[in-house]
Amino acid sequence: MARKTGSHSEITGPRIRAEAARLFSRHGFAAVSMRAIARAVGVQAGALYLYTPDKESLLFDLLKTHMDELLAAWEAEPRAEDPAARLECFVRFHIRFNLERAEAVFLSYMELRNLSPENFARIESLRKRYEDALEAILRQGQAAGVFAVPDTKLATMAIIAMLTGVNTWFREGGRLSRDRVEAIYWDMVRKSVAP
Amino acid sequence: MARKTGSHSEITGPRIRAEAARLFSRHGFAAVSMRAIARAVGVQAGALYLYTPDKESLLFDLLKTHMDELLAAWEAEPRAEDPAARLECFVRFHIRFNLERAEAVFLSYMELRNLSPENFARIESLRKRYEDALEAILRQGQAAGVFAVPDTKLATMAIIAMLTGVNTWFREGGRLSRDRVEAIYWDMVRKSVAP
Repeated sequence: MARKTGSHSEITGPRIRAEAARLFSRHGFAAVSMRAIARAVGVQAGALYLYTPDKESLLFDLLKTHMDELLAAWEAEPRAEDPAARLECFVRFHIRFNLERAEAVFLSYMELRNLSPENFARIESLRKRYEDALEAILRQGQAAGVFAVPDTKLATMAIIAMLTGVNTWFREGGRLSRDRVEAIYWDMVRKSVAP
Repeated sequence: MARKTGSHSEITGPRIRAEAARLFSRHGFAAVSMRAIARAVGVQAGALYLYTPDKESLLFDLLKTHMDELLAAWEAEPRAEDPAARLECFVRFHIRFNLERAEAVFLSYMELRNLSPENFARIESLRKRYEDALEAILRQGQAAGVFAVPDTKLATMAIIAMLTGVNTWFREGGRLSRDRVEAIYWDMVRKSVAP
């Protein structure tokens, strides 16, 4: 059956997603019912099923949208040719993008286990594409002799974990600005891959 | 009322904790009932309440035990005086300990939000003690001129996030041994704090 189009779905879609993201990140996926999401949106539970077949599809939709936006935003960054400049760009981009999407990042890490195996594999392949983008920079720098990394795969995982960790402690208006945090992390990453 | 002592509580305590940890990490805290834990242990739900007043106390018990064991194990490590040797010891210890307790580490990151505010604060203060142990090493090396870290607090958070990330991808019997992974991470950490 064709899904309803027009103003109804256009207005409620983003609101459903926003309320679902807020409730999932506050209480956890398992503790949130479709009824609770409908209540938060201000529609009947039945109306929710016009938008999504089930709760897991809604979660997958949130996680996939986050990864699609991350990949598109990285592709849209100005492309430095120099590996060190490109690595600096990646470090600053990752911290900035993730701090701006704190809720989506939190969900992406916390609720992966609640995806079906097929949907989990789809998210994993998008993550892999993002990791590959960083690994390509490390390989390029390695080939040019400006980086010395014993294992580009491990360095990729180490750098991404380090950068994503900022989300767990950063508070806007705290001791350090985002820009200062980016600069400090770049200093550590730059040295960690240096010859 | 005094809690029952003797063989009953001694035998079921560890089993209750092990089954709770397994179920929480597989399905999430919110999705697991006291009844389900009792069933997995093979006792009546009522017997569970002889051991713990409620599900949140059981979760707190698991998270606190993990932090207590982590801190005790770190204290028991041989104490190198040289800051670089001590940092290497910390890096290898953290990776090794966390890989050995993968389930407890996973729970500690996933289920923090399900603690009461007081219990959350107690876990946070134990985490802070562990972070302080690493920061003390960085300060010591900084003072001795062997490390150059723009901000010891941020370097602490960056290093811990990087090392803990190993748990998300490491597979026993995979491409690299634990020892090789430790050596590669130590190489990156060593350089990241170098002058």
